[in-house]
Amino acid sequence: MAPKVMQLLESIEAIVGENGIFEDDARGVGAIVRPASSDQVSRVLKLCNDAGQSIVPIGGNSTMVQGTHRGRGELALSLERMSMIEEIDTESRTMTVQAGAKLQDVQEAAEKNGFFYPLDIGARGSATVGGNIATNAGGNRVIRYGMTREQIVALEVVLADGTIIPMQGKALKNNTGYDLKHLFISSEGTLGIVTRAILRLRTLPTSQCCGWVSVPSFEALTKLLTFVEGFSQGMLSSFEVLWAEYYEFITGPSCPHSPPIPYGDPYTVLIETQGMNQKENTSSFEVMLSEAFSEGLISDAVIAKNMAERDRLWAIRDDVNQAIQLAPIWAFDVSLAINDMEAYVDEVKTALNERWSKNSLFTYGHLGDGNLHLLPAVGDGSNETRIAIERIIYEGIRKRNGSISAEHGIGHHKTAWLSYTRTSVEIALMKKIKQTLDPGDILNPGKIFGEDPCTILTE
Amino acid sequence: MAPKVMQLLESIEAIVGENGIFEDDARGVGAIVRPASSDQVSRVLKLCNDAGQSIVPIGGNSTMVQGTHRGRGELALSLERMSMIEEIDTESRTMTVQAGAKLQDVQEAAEKNGFFYPLDIGARGSATVGGNIATNAGGNRVIRYGMTREQIVALEVVLADGTIIPMQGKALKNNTGYDLKHLFISSEGTLGIVTRAILRLRTLPTSQCCGWVSVPSFEALTKLLTFVEGFSQGMLSSFEVLWAEYYEFITGPSCPHSPPIPYGDPYTVLIETQGMNQKENTSSFEVMLSEAFSEGLISDAVIAKNMAERDRLWAIRDDVNQAIQLAPIWAFDVSLAINDMEAYVDEVKTALNERWSKNSLFTYGHLGDGNLHLLPAVGDGSNETRIAIERIIYEGIRKRNGSISAEHGIGHHKTAWLSYTRTSVEIALMKKIKQTLDPGDILNPGKIFGEDPCTILTE
Repeated sequence: MAPKVMQLLESIEAIVGENGIFEDDARGVGAIVRPASSDQVSRVLKLCNDAGQSIVPIGGNSTMVQGTHRGRGELALSLERMSMIEEIDTESRTMTVQAGAKLQDVQEAAEKNGFFYPLDIGARGSATVGGNIATNAGGNRVIRYGMTREQIVALEVVLADGTIIPMQGKALKNNTGYDLKHLFISSEGTLGIVTRAILRLRTLPTSQCCGWVSVPSFEALTKLLTFVEGFSQGMLSSFEVLWAEYYEFITGPSCPHSPPIPYGDPYTVLIETQGMNQKENTSSFEVMLSEAFSEGLISDAVIAKNMAERDRLWAIRDDVNQAIQLAPIWAFDVSLAINDMEAYVDEVKTALNERWSKNSLFTYGHLGDGNLHLLPAVGDGSNETRIAIERIIYEGIRKRNGSISAEHGIGHHKTAWLSYTRTSVEIALMKKIKQTLDPGDILNPGKIFGEDPCTILTE
Repeated sequence: MAPKVMQLLESIEAIVGENGIFEDDARGVGAIVRPASSDQVSRVLKLCNDAGQSIVPIGGNSTMVQGTHRGRGELALSLERMSMIEEIDTESRTMTVQAGAKLQDVQEAAEKNGFFYPLDIGARGSATVGGNIATNAGGNRVIRYGMTREQIVALEVVLADGTIIPMQGKALKNNTGYDLKHLFISSEGTLGIVTRAILRLRTLPTSQCCGWVSVPSFEALTKLLTFVEGFSQGMLSSFEVLWAEYYEFITGPSCPHSPPIPYGDPYTVLIETQGMNQKENTSSFEVMLSEAFSEGLISDAVIAKNMAERDRLWAIRDDVNQAIQLAPIWAFDVSLAINDMEAYVDEVKTALNERWSKNSLFTYGHLGDGNLHLLPAVGDGSNETRIAIERIIYEGIRKRNGSISAEHGIGHHKTAWLSYTRTSVEIALMKKIKQTLDPGDILNPGKIFGEDPCTILTE
């Protein structure tokens, strides 16, 4: 390691202590710095900023887009020593946490105090609050509770130069100039390091109803969503659609799940409501599905009779990893207007068919949020194929004014395609803001904005 | 008018046409410019930016904080010719509007199509969507649906130099870099001119229940909020608290309302739920209040039996203008943690008592949002008195880490007190962003950031 870097690491060690830094020479990626307080984060950042040293913030490492990719010599910054739940305020219904706290710990602490922290993603056991915020994580309950952004009351952030932007208070309403927290939420660690957060807690639901239904057409599907949202009077917490090709795979012979309802329709949906009265909700849920049946919106339905059956239904929805059987396979996470979805998925499938006679396209998603996950596989994992498939997936999104990332973010992986969703004036404005907040470009460089976004597109 | 300004106005007229500009010499405030398209807004702004000409965007002029205050020679920019509702997309449940559309027109257009635009404020008939966005307007249904920020899917914005930031698509989820729209929401016209917006529509509620209850203590009040939120399973749309002093005035001999429930308790609350089944909701609302009574959370209650009775209850809550009887009177709009509210209001009242033996303090607000409106009157309207009262109101907010403006914004009126809510590093960062987006400071100058924020504080 160069003497200059050695000197920097020694200065950092003087701040964070012996336990606060691990050299990571094996991977050639400098070191992992583990500050124990916001003040230490501030002092480390100031040092790095003065030295022009790049910093890559890492959370639970469950990024889907290489959001924590490190180049040679880049330092990682982990807040794993800052994982304290500092306060649960039962009157303001907020929780104050350090950004290194794990999502699952936050959920459990809320529940222990009679509250609900609604954000939930598969990686709950490893993902941190800071990572959730940096990526504006979504998940299965967005339709009712919103994404991470909607759960945040206030943030403490350390800027590249070490300035600590202190946390505002617990008030949900604060119209005093620019709402700076929104700038940092979804900025993927490129504008500042979130060190603490005040989270909004909700009322803990004490009942839930879960069912799986079969839907004869896309028109019926959108009508069903509107009907269910209205009928359930604010209690709808999930509306997860599986296209037939995926449904038949995940409940087929090669997977450990049996189909809850017969095949035949183009869509099936997992519907869940959460409330406070199990008896009432169950009866209302049954009436709802029975009316949907009468209206021709669904052609079949099954309702979970107990938690075990509910868990079995969710296991089908959540067992996305089965798709690896078809590897090489890619996971896309796009959003677009609901009324464009049917044509879009058909178009992608047609394009795959044209080029690869043997292919599969698994499609599922959070319909109410306009969010689709597409997993195409064509039997080849070369870089050329990847680019060709990315182009098919993203061209259809571009012309429909959709987003190339609904939930996962851009990270390192999607920088080449950013311009498919954001216009050049938007990107220019984003870069201006980046330049204003991090003029030395030390914070997570190469994420969101690629070094040369067009390299892979010029093939 | 100076020749240079005359020349600028002529160039502007060439863009917006004869009907697009009114000279406003009588008030010595230059002219009102009324562009008819985003392109015209862009070209006008470019001209003004090049000429260093200040622009004050105006909406419905219902600002509570002199947000559209114009200095001599400043041009006003009105979007009243851009009031079109461009599209209602029933599948994506969005409405695309020009920013000059009136809030009430938006509400009615939504309803005509079977949807609900939940934002509602008293000035709905004059306030524009653009003004709502610039100020992040709140109102009576925030507890369920959020403020204006939560209703916005996408924005088209024209920057000071004329750059048009185009609107993103209709997808609710879009994690592709910085979410720029949040920068403009609540920026009070200082960072750009919002010209179009995609608004999120909700399911139209078809039933509502409304009641007025009496609450024996602040502890019971916060417990009641938690209980009602839980019991009503997501249907709670308003929880409006009146402190006794205000309740007794607004239903007393000098006002045209009679008290729905007897005096005696320190707080009364208007509670409203919205759902889709009137019969079920009514029965559930009655059970809810009866359980609250058994638990000692309320000591009395009345439930509206029909829309006329419901309107009579809301008329009490909304007839804030009666307070003018006590003029000179000031209207404050603060927010703070719910568990700090009781002590805060007591402290303000004590401070008023110490200095003015005869005074009144009307207090009411949206408890669930942490938002209080305070209207003190002491029989004197001098500038000295105003400053003394502002100091009392805002000192208590500062030490509790609250906000000096929950809903109304800073405008011209509150610039002197910004530092009571936002730290110097936050203000410095806000100013840096302002400088980045509007280096010539032509957009609504003197708002949010005062010329000299401390002038009035040094008395």
